[in-house]
Amino acid sequence: MTLQNTLQQKMTAAQIARNGYRGGKITPTAGVAPGMTQANMIALPADYAWDFLLYAQRNPQSCPVLDVIEAGRTDTVLASGADISRDIPLYRVWRDGKLDQEVGDASALWQQHPDLVTFLIGCSFTFETPLMEAGIEIRHITTGSNVPMYLTNRACRPAGKLQGNMVVSMRPIPAHQVADAVAITGRYPAVHGKPVHIGDPQALGITDISRPDFGDIPQIRPGEIPVFWACGVTPQAAVMASKVPFAISHAPGHMFITDVADSSFHV
Amino acid sequence: MTLQNTLQQKMTAAQIARNGYRGGKITPTAGVAPGMTQANMIALPADYAWDFLLYAQRNPQSCPVLDVIEAGRTDTVLASGADISRDIPLYRVWRDGKLDQEVGDASALWQQHPDLVTFLIGCSFTFETPLMEAGIEIRHITTGSNVPMYLTNRACRPAGKLQGNMVVSMRPIPAHQVADAVAITGRYPAVHGKPVHIGDPQALGITDISRPDFGDIPQIRPGEIPVFWACGVTPQAAVMASKVPFAISHAPGHMFITDVADSSFHV
Repeated sequence: MTLQNTLQQKMTAAQIARNGYRGGKITPTAGVAPGMTQANMIALPADYAWDFLLYAQRNPQSCPVLDVIEAGRTDTVLASGADISRDIPLYRVWRDGKLDQEVGDASALWQQHPDLVTFLIGCSFTFETPLMEAGIEIRHITTGSNVPMYLTNRACRPAGKLQGNMVVSMRPIPAHQVADAVAITGRYPAVHGKPVHIGDPQALGITDISRPDFGDIPQIRPGEIPVFWACGVTPQAAVMASKVPFAISHAPGHMFITDVADSSFHV
Repeated sequence: MTLQNTLQQKMTAAQIARNGYRGGKITPTAGVAPGMTQANMIALPADYAWDFLLYAQRNPQSCPVLDVIEAGRTDTVLASGADISRDIPLYRVWRDGKLDQEVGDASALWQQHPDLVTFLIGCSFTFETPLMEAGIEIRHITTGSNVPMYLTNRACRPAGKLQGNMVVSMRPIPAHQVADAVAITGRYPAVHGKPVHIGDPQALGITDISRPDFGDIPQIRPGEIPVFWACGVTPQAAVMASKVPFAISHAPGHMFITDVADSSFHV
C-alpha cells in the first residue's frame, strides 16, 4: 500500500466517523479514526468571542485554539465538508452557566443563534496514538470507556467576563513509563503538551480520584501513577463559573474528528 | 555562583536594558540581555483587536501571541514594572497604513489613544542564544547590525479587516549546520519555530537578497545557505496592506525585552 493510499484511508476514516455522528450515532471518540486529530468545541455568542479568544491565549495549555469559525458559519478549515453543528456525536447546551440539555444534532440551535462564534480546541486524544505506538497502554481505550476528567483547584488567568478553573484529563501510567509519556506528549504543545501534574491528586484539589467530574470511573492498577494533562473541557468550566447566558459545547469525550493528521502537531 | 544568582543577574540585564530605552537609548536589541525572551509589539485601536487576535491565531508561525495588554493599560505579565509605551528602544507610528514617524517614547500617543490594545508577539531573537550555544554563528550579532527581513509573496490567512503577506527574517547558515539550526529552532514553536524556507530566495518572491525590506544588508559568505524564519514584523505588513487607520509598533529589530527566560519557550 502506498503512503497516499494510507492517507486516503485515514481521511476516509475521519469522514466516515463524522457521517456516522451526523446520522445520529452517539459514542465517545477515543480511539476513533486513529492518527487523525480530534478537537474540543465551544460556541459562544459574538459578544463573548473576544473574551474567549483572550482567555484561550492566556491559558494556552488548556485552551490551545486550532480554528475559529466566525459567526454565521459552521464550516472549518480542519475538515473538508464538515458541519460543526451536526458532526459531533453529542452536544451540550448551556444556559446561564448550567447544563440545559444534551442533543445529538445542534443545527436547529445554530439557526436560532446566528451570532455564535465557534472555537475548536486541541484535544489530548491527539497524542494517544503516539503514546500507544511507544507501548504505553491507554486504559480508557483498552476498557472502551471515556477518559476521566476532573475540575481542579487551579485558577485560569481570567479574561473579561470569563474566569474558571482548569479541567484535567487523567491517564494511569506504569511508573517506569511516566518519563516516556512526558517526553512524547511534550512534543505536542498545540494539543495540551506535557502533563500539568504527575501523582498526588490532592495537590490539584481532587479529593476522590474514583469520582471524576466528567467521563468514566478510572481503573488504576498497582504500580501505576495518575498523570494529569490540561483538558479542552476547561472552556465548559469557564462557561459554568462565569454564568455565560448561552453556549453550545461538545459533550466531554465526544469530540470533533478532523482531517488533520496528529503528526502535523508534532514539533 | 548559585543558579538563583544567575537568574537574578539575567533579570537585571533585561531591566537595565529596558531602563536604558526608557531613558532614550536607541539601538537594535539582538544580543542584548542574552537568554531573555524578546518580543515584537503591535498596538491597534480596540475595534481592530478581535480581527488581529484572530489573524494571529490563523497565522501562528508569524504571529505567536505571548501577551495581550487590554485597552487603557501599558503593563504586561512578561516584565515586572515595565511600561510598553516607553520601554522599547524605537517605535513606529502608522496612519492609514503608512509609516508616519519614528519615536523613542510613545507614551504621549498612548495617552491620546486610550483605546489601544497591545499585542506582544514572539521574536526569533529568542532562539539565537541556543543557536550560538550550538556553535552556529549569528551573523548580524557578529557584525553588530540588525537582522535582515523581507516581505514575501506568501499570503497570510486573512481575518476580518486584516490581510497581508508574511515577513521573514534571514540568517545565513553554513550548509553543514542547517540541519542543526532547523532542529534547534523547531523546539521553539512559540517564537516562530522551525524555518519556513531554506535556500532560494526567489521561491519567497525575494528578488534581491542584498536589499532587505527591513533591517540591514546581510553578509552571506561562500558555502552559506540563506535560512528564513517567520517574523513578528508580519503584523506591520498587515497594517500597511490593510490600511489600518492608526497603529503603533516597535521598529524592526528594536524589540521589547521581557523578564521571561528563552528556555521557558523550549518544548
